[in-house]
Amino acid sequence: MTETVLTSEKQKVVIGFDHRFVMIGERINPTGRKLLAEEMARGDYSRVLADAVAQVEAGAQMLDVNAGIPLADEPAILAECVRLVQDTVPVPLSIDSSIVAALEAGLAAYRGKPLVNSVTGEEERLEQVLPLVKKYNAAVVAISNDETGISEDPDVRFEVARKIVERAADFGIPREDIVVDPLVMPVGAINDAGRKLIHLLRRLREELKVNTTCGASNFSFGLPNRRGLNAAFLPMMIGAGMTSAIMNPLHNEDIQAILGADVVMGHDPNCGSWIRKFREPAPEGAAGERGRREGRRRARG
Amino acid sequence: MTETVLTSEKQKVVIGFDHRFVMIGERINPTGRKLLAEEMARGDYSRVLADAVAQVEAGAQMLDVNAGIPLADEPAILAECVRLVQDTVPVPLSIDSSIVAALEAGLAAYRGKPLVNSVTGEEERLEQVLPLVKKYNAAVVAISNDETGISEDPDVRFEVARKIVERAADFGIPREDIVVDPLVMPVGAINDAGRKLIHLLRRLREELKVNTTCGASNFSFGLPNRRGLNAAFLPMMIGAGMTSAIMNPLHNEDIQAILGADVVMGHDPNCGSWIRKFREPAPEGAAGERGRREGRRRARG
Repeated sequence: MTETVLTSEKQKVVIGFDHRFVMIGERINPTGRKLLAEEMARGDYSRVLADAVAQVEAGAQMLDVNAGIPLADEPAILAECVRLVQDTVPVPLSIDSSIVAALEAGLAAYRGKPLVNSVTGEEERLEQVLPLVKKYNAAVVAISNDETGISEDPDVRFEVARKIVERAADFGIPREDIVVDPLVMPVGAINDAGRKLIHLLRRLREELKVNTTCGASNFSFGLPNRRGLNAAFLPMMIGAGMTSAIMNPLHNEDIQAILGADVVMGHDPNCGSWIRKFREPAPEGAAGERGRREGRRRARG
Repeated sequence: MTETVLTSEKQKVVIGFDHRFVMIGERINPTGRKLLAEEMARGDYSRVLADAVAQVEAGAQMLDVNAGIPLADEPAILAECVRLVQDTVPVPLSIDSSIVAALEAGLAAYRGKPLVNSVTGEEERLEQVLPLVKKYNAAVVAISNDETGISEDPDVRFEVARKIVERAADFGIPREDIVVDPLVMPVGAINDAGRKLIHLLRRLREELKVNTTCGASNFSFGLPNRRGLNAAFLPMMIGAGMTSAIMNPLHNEDIQAILGADVVMGHDPNCGSWIRKFREPAPEGAAGERGRREGRRRARG
């Protein structure tokens, strides 16, 4: 049973086949968020921290932190974000950058065992990122593409994942510290993307025995009612073996789908989380404020 | 590839691993519907026919018809329902009764190849129902319990299903005309009910190679936000191999979950059904009436 353990100073999260699904909040990312990018570039992290709090309140067990702003000092900004987010919320983090120096700055600032997002099967990237993962005793997201690009053949992607696991072992990084991203393709463009992903997830789980994560919302790209489609997609991927996702926990449809999938998988003892989340609020008294908060949250969703 | 083919005079429905999921509307059933039972008992079928139309409009590819009213002449009522529903909607039917004489009356009245709901692994039931299924060239729902009751062990239920398939073969009924109901148990009472069901569905598909159906809503019995849980449960069961369900097509959450699962399974070519169902209605002109109808349907949901 493969267990990927991530820690902060205060909390431990286990990604694994026999554990509840791990939601990694994706919101702290300036890509496509112009205002956030400007604020982060001038050292204003108020929105970053508000996003951190909101995502943890909504149920995220981990947060991804990305500071990819063109022409900015990404290593310094990412390190500062990691420090401030850790000061603000108790959950473990995923340190996310395409720049190796930024990953190292974030790792140096981190307290605990984080996830590094990410390495690919490209030789240069493997040789730069894996030593950092080992040096800082982190776990790492392994994206299943390499120099030849992203194959549409799930068995080719499986072999890329296997190569990364083997190369990581050469660096002394155990299999349980590799979380494979099988790459979610948009089903609007590739009609058998879902079926291929189920096939790949089963192989990753049963043969390579690794945990998995993905950017789930890419599946519905370009289609109407994206949240509705994501809410069917996520449970099916969880049933096929996916153990975490980088996602927006402020989308209630996704949270409901994941909590429901936890119930179906038998990972919610006595359906306790489901019942706490969805029981009718008491009509008055102490539970009233809770009921109103839930109402507002739904209205925002 | 196992294909269960059901027909009416006008339509053919195929239940199969490589086909879209088949929704069998459950509404025409007086159990727990006092007003409907009284109307049916005195020969007023207006609500039955309105239910038939509404379910087909909502997307049901088949309808279950049950006339189980205590002290009423169930064979005569079921036969009349079958005739009138077939006059009203074009879809194939599932003829549903625990009384063998009612099943035979319904079968005699039916035009096409229906589904018989149901036979169990109980010896007496097998010997009564299977000859009817053969005589009328029907397919049959096989419920995986027998004289010893419903086992919590999915492998025991698998053996009951295997026994029914073998006994049906003795009567000249091929495997593709058996649709196994693996029995959905409430997860609120049995915490690993979902996981056991996934295990059983995979065995039924990969080893026994039969199509499957179930009463899906039983899974969420006793829990809050039942529709939300059903909407996670259904896609996971479809991913595990379930090919049809007896369900309420007026629940929009279920319909969305099933259409989404069809997309993920690659059974919705070019996502056509998803796009037709969920694209934004045009603000005015020819599509306006469609938009208003969709709006009303959602409001009823």
